[in-house]
Amino acid sequence: MEYLNKLQWRYATKRFDKSRKLNSTQVDNLLQAANLAPTSYGLQPFAIAMVTDDKVKEKLSPAAFNQPQVTEASHLFIFSARTDLTDRDVEQYIERIANTRGIPKESLADFDQTMKGTIKNLQPEQRFQWAARQAYISLGMLLSAAALQDIDACPMEGFNNDQFDEILGLKEKGFSTLAMVAAGYRSAKDEYQHYKKVRKSLDEFVINY
Amino acid sequence: MEYLNKLQWRYATKRFDKSRKLNSTQVDNLLQAANLAPTSYGLQPFAIAMVTDDKVKEKLSPAAFNQPQVTEASHLFIFSARTDLTDRDVEQYIERIANTRGIPKESLADFDQTMKGTIKNLQPEQRFQWAARQAYISLGMLLSAAALQDIDACPMEGFNNDQFDEILGLKEKGFSTLAMVAAGYRSAKDEYQHYKKVRKSLDEFVINY
Repeated sequence: MEYLNKLQWRYATKRFDKSRKLNSTQVDNLLQAANLAPTSYGLQPFAIAMVTDDKVKEKLSPAAFNQPQVTEASHLFIFSARTDLTDRDVEQYIERIANTRGIPKESLADFDQTMKGTIKNLQPEQRFQWAARQAYISLGMLLSAAALQDIDACPMEGFNNDQFDEILGLKEKGFSTLAMVAAGYRSAKDEYQHYKKVRKSLDEFVINY
Repeated sequence: MEYLNKLQWRYATKRFDKSRKLNSTQVDNLLQAANLAPTSYGLQPFAIAMVTDDKVKEKLSPAAFNQPQVTEASHLFIFSARTDLTDRDVEQYIERIANTRGIPKESLADFDQTMKGTIKNLQPEQRFQWAARQAYISLGMLLSAAALQDIDACPMEGFNNDQFDEILGLKEKGFSTLAMVAAGYRSAKDEYQHYKKVRKSLDEFVINY
């Protein structure tokens, strides 16, 4: 299966060739794939902060312990979860369904109440963790779309999320940083591309019933 | 991009054709894709409980509120996070790296200490949430591998995780249920296959910097 070859090919790229940029079609494919990811109820409780401006990358760099990916990659895709889901999120989603499917909002009243009930029954921290998990499905799909286009990428969690939120002004927009994907083209000098991929055996990874 | 067409084609399948089963090559592709997903440090702090036995599906069904996917799907892939990561997980991973790359374990001493330090600095609940997020990247990749093979799938969170853990004896194995993917082939009678997919516009989904 070609997808497996691409997943074998990809690796967490540490050094990017700063001179090579992704083109708009490639970027659109990455964003579309991330946006098509399924989420619980279809709520999509997250956003992607996409950084292309070198000046913004420079500001983020110290908050990511100066890891070279941040300033060398063509694009940064910073996955950010909804800080706190509210009834308004549900209502906007209900509107989106009604508009997309050309049905009256009233026909979605039960679904509206189900979602609001679920949200109400969770503590704010639980809502955030729930939103975060959905974002990681999307992160997986963006990484897949990168590999399938022979685009190099590095998923990263090791940075200061609070500082990222502040630099990007995300809290004011109702989001908080989770993880990022740096994407572009590997540098020939990145030694990690030569390392053999390490994974569990399927015997360890899978429990059969 | 063909991947986007496949992601458009897929949907959260509610009714499966119980008579159609996935073959072993298809299942192997799904598991390999899930296993190739990147994870923080490469630790892979999760497992997949794969259910094919009809008797086990019947037992799980009430714990999933009798949603028909559980008994009608060909396979259930239940993503389960490590209940609590310990130094032993790190040590097993270090061994895996040394074996795969043919290098002495001693050369990985710094990496070993970094990971142990990270784990130590997290509370048990934080460790679990961290493990859970990694599992969701893998879930995204399994769903992608399904769509790329024209296999129908339904990612599901709405079930009783504790009851799943008990029925599958997962706690004793050091894991706890997060989410599952039911996979197989859609039934012609599943009306959801005709619904238009609802997603945010990229303008809503992406914040540009």
